[in-house]
Amino acid sequence: MSTAAFAAAETATSPDALVAALAAAGRAAQAGLARMSGGEKADALRAAASELRAAEAEILAANAKDLATGAANGLTPAMLDRLKLDPARLAGIAAAVEQVASLADPVGQVIDATERPNGLRLSRVRVPIGLIGIIYESRPNVTADAAALCLRSGNAVLLRGGSEAVGSNRAIHAALVRGLTSRGVPEAAVQLVPSQDRAVVGAMLTAAGLIDMIVPRGGKSLVARVQADARVPVLAHLDGICHTFIHHSADPAMARSIALNAKMRRTGICGAMETLLIDATFPDPHGVVEALLDAGCELRGDPRAQAIDPRIQPASAEDWDTEYLDAVLSVAVVDGLDDALDHIARHSSDHTDAIVTGDDTAAERFLNEVDSAIVMVNASTQFADGGEFGLGAEIGIATGRLHARGPVALEGLTTYKWQVRGAGQVRP
Amino acid sequence: MSTAAFAAAETATSPDALVAALAAAGRAAQAGLARMSGGEKADALRAAASELRAAEAEILAANAKDLATGAANGLTPAMLDRLKLDPARLAGIAAAVEQVASLADPVGQVIDATERPNGLRLSRVRVPIGLIGIIYESRPNVTADAAALCLRSGNAVLLRGGSEAVGSNRAIHAALVRGLTSRGVPEAAVQLVPSQDRAVVGAMLTAAGLIDMIVPRGGKSLVARVQADARVPVLAHLDGICHTFIHHSADPAMARSIALNAKMRRTGICGAMETLLIDATFPDPHGVVEALLDAGCELRGDPRAQAIDPRIQPASAEDWDTEYLDAVLSVAVVDGLDDALDHIARHSSDHTDAIVTGDDTAAERFLNEVDSAIVMVNASTQFADGGEFGLGAEIGIATGRLHARGPVALEGLTTYKWQVRGAGQVRP
Repeated sequence: MSTAAFAAAETATSPDALVAALAAAGRAAQAGLARMSGGEKADALRAAASELRAAEAEILAANAKDLATGAANGLTPAMLDRLKLDPARLAGIAAAVEQVASLADPVGQVIDATERPNGLRLSRVRVPIGLIGIIYESRPNVTADAAALCLRSGNAVLLRGGSEAVGSNRAIHAALVRGLTSRGVPEAAVQLVPSQDRAVVGAMLTAAGLIDMIVPRGGKSLVARVQADARVPVLAHLDGICHTFIHHSADPAMARSIALNAKMRRTGICGAMETLLIDATFPDPHGVVEALLDAGCELRGDPRAQAIDPRIQPASAEDWDTEYLDAVLSVAVVDGLDDALDHIARHSSDHTDAIVTGDDTAAERFLNEVDSAIVMVNASTQFADGGEFGLGAEIGIATGRLHARGPVALEGLTTYKWQVRGAGQVRP
Repeated sequence: MSTAAFAAAETATSPDALVAALAAAGRAAQAGLARMSGGEKADALRAAASELRAAEAEILAANAKDLATGAANGLTPAMLDRLKLDPARLAGIAAAVEQVASLADPVGQVIDATERPNGLRLSRVRVPIGLIGIIYESRPNVTADAAALCLRSGNAVLLRGGSEAVGSNRAIHAALVRGLTSRGVPEAAVQLVPSQDRAVVGAMLTAAGLIDMIVPRGGKSLVARVQADARVPVLAHLDGICHTFIHHSADPAMARSIALNAKMRRTGICGAMETLLIDATFPDPHGVVEALLDAGCELRGDPRAQAIDPRIQPASAEDWDTEYLDAVLSVAVVDGLDDALDHIARHSSDHTDAIVTGDDTAAERFLNEVDSAIVMVNASTQFADGGEFGLGAEIGIATGRLHARGPVALEGLTTYKWQVRGAGQVRP
């Protein structure tokens, strides 16, 4: 926790006052950060990674205390696993910070440039957004990951982690700040909210003009609360109800392997397929269904899908709007591309939807007419990921319509300004 | 007013229900619009311009009634002038619609494209945002201008104009829709809210998930209300407190002409200079001040500025945060670039700020360190305009930090999606 954060926590008389004080310190630090070069920021991140490694004993001890408290408070094994650090996980966190340091600095990139007939030269140049608020749950790695991405893109960050990870987050944050400040980064560029009062989250969400963007990292209930209460712009996705449509022209072997991978590679990620749509005239529906059933997936189908295999359970109306995040899949038989597009328009969560097809016209119509953040042809929806997209690392996947969509990485943490260079021009 | 809007107005039991019905109709129409080519949309806009010309008598008659009602209700001469249409103004409105038709269609433009080592081909492609809400006051030209820009970029639009212009807006809207539907545009792509109940504005502002973005067009009180109450993203600027800093190295003649133009060319536009900062070591402060005073500008200065000329009145603390929109200017003497940057950081409204300098290093520091939507070197702040920037036409100027900044034209009315083309890839 920074000196500024300590001071703010000690003198603030309300959650709003605390957030205002932290935001003011963060914004001032961001202005300092804006004067550092890309190389200086990268060096500072490498120093932070070194400090994370050097603080292994301290961080793991804090984490062990968090784990003991969590176990006493009845956290589930899954929650305790998300909270748990060990030497390998901590090494991974430090390596991830170094990886972010190695990414190209988006700040200062020229998006486009023109010269007007009157000689004015205009360019749009990427600049940091400002102060980013991160609200997360029990995973302590978010403390380092999110801080690194924000800092690499020139932003200050205000981190508010879950109370079950408070000791781990403080130890990680302290190590980060030691490294960063040793290379000239202002201390308040990375601040950890020094209070676990839940009202502080509400104060962050409504701090329009103080915090420029909020990124929630965690489960659906956290994201839903943030989206419902925020007056500050939010970058997030609530659901990943991803569809795969097997067009009648699809290669049966490709359809089988994509459907199996999209559902079963990892069932708990937002890019996992949750609904399979099979064209009524696709020649091998049973091959696809059997592959999924044999892999241990429960299938819930409409009557026509149930006719494919007796092991398919009946789907209820809610199934078409459910993100299972488990080895469960809804399956519907549709009458061609238009029927599939219609189903997707009604039920997609705008995350990722795919078609498997041998028909280029159908592929292009699907790419153009499905209005999701990511649309795919002949590929597994599990590729919906910043790393797989070559972005290096992602702060999250966004399904909103403004600013940034799909996997959001460093570029999505920037905005732009117009730079105008003249030679004395006045407007007629 | 469209059939759908009529139906919605007749059956809606509350402002929220009315907006929900209009939004549903608009979103459905937008999906139809998305299947039209750029050429088809341009043709439809040209047909709309023709219908505007053909409906001159009807539109001017409706406008005359609005003017009579307005005069009886005590509208000021300035308000009546904003409301007034005549043959020349209506011809200008039709020509502006044709001009928007001639702009390049941003939809479908490929922002960037990459191929991954596994052969997946990724591209980011511009798509419409969806349904745009426009909330405006007494200028009836906004009905046509905003509709044309939204439509050209593939968006549906929900227009809510001021009650003093209700007849003019309905006549313009009816002509637009006649032209658009004659070329296949769905009727509800351009809807005029069929109710002047002010609660409908509130319902639009909170229609998150139904309306994708709100653009307020009007005075500061309208924009302030929209920004305060909106849960939907808003594209706007509240103030244009634009600064011009005259660096000690500035050419005195250039400084004079830029200052005079930035303030006095038109005092009522958002890009007009409101504060002049003069470097303490600039050799000819009196020449600049005298030019402004001679042109009829009232100057309000800090004590050091007042020492330049006895006609300069004392400035109060509020002057540094005031957008005069009039022949009034605040003037401060500052000690070099850092002091100017500091003043601007404290008082700028993030719209447009300029430096006049002969020193490239000072110019580049100003361009990089002033964090406004538009930063200028050696040019008048009055150039802050979409037309002057070569964007063709603008929906507004935005001072927020996300999505789009500065003059926002067709591109700012789009977002993007990721298109992924594979050949059967599954994720390892």
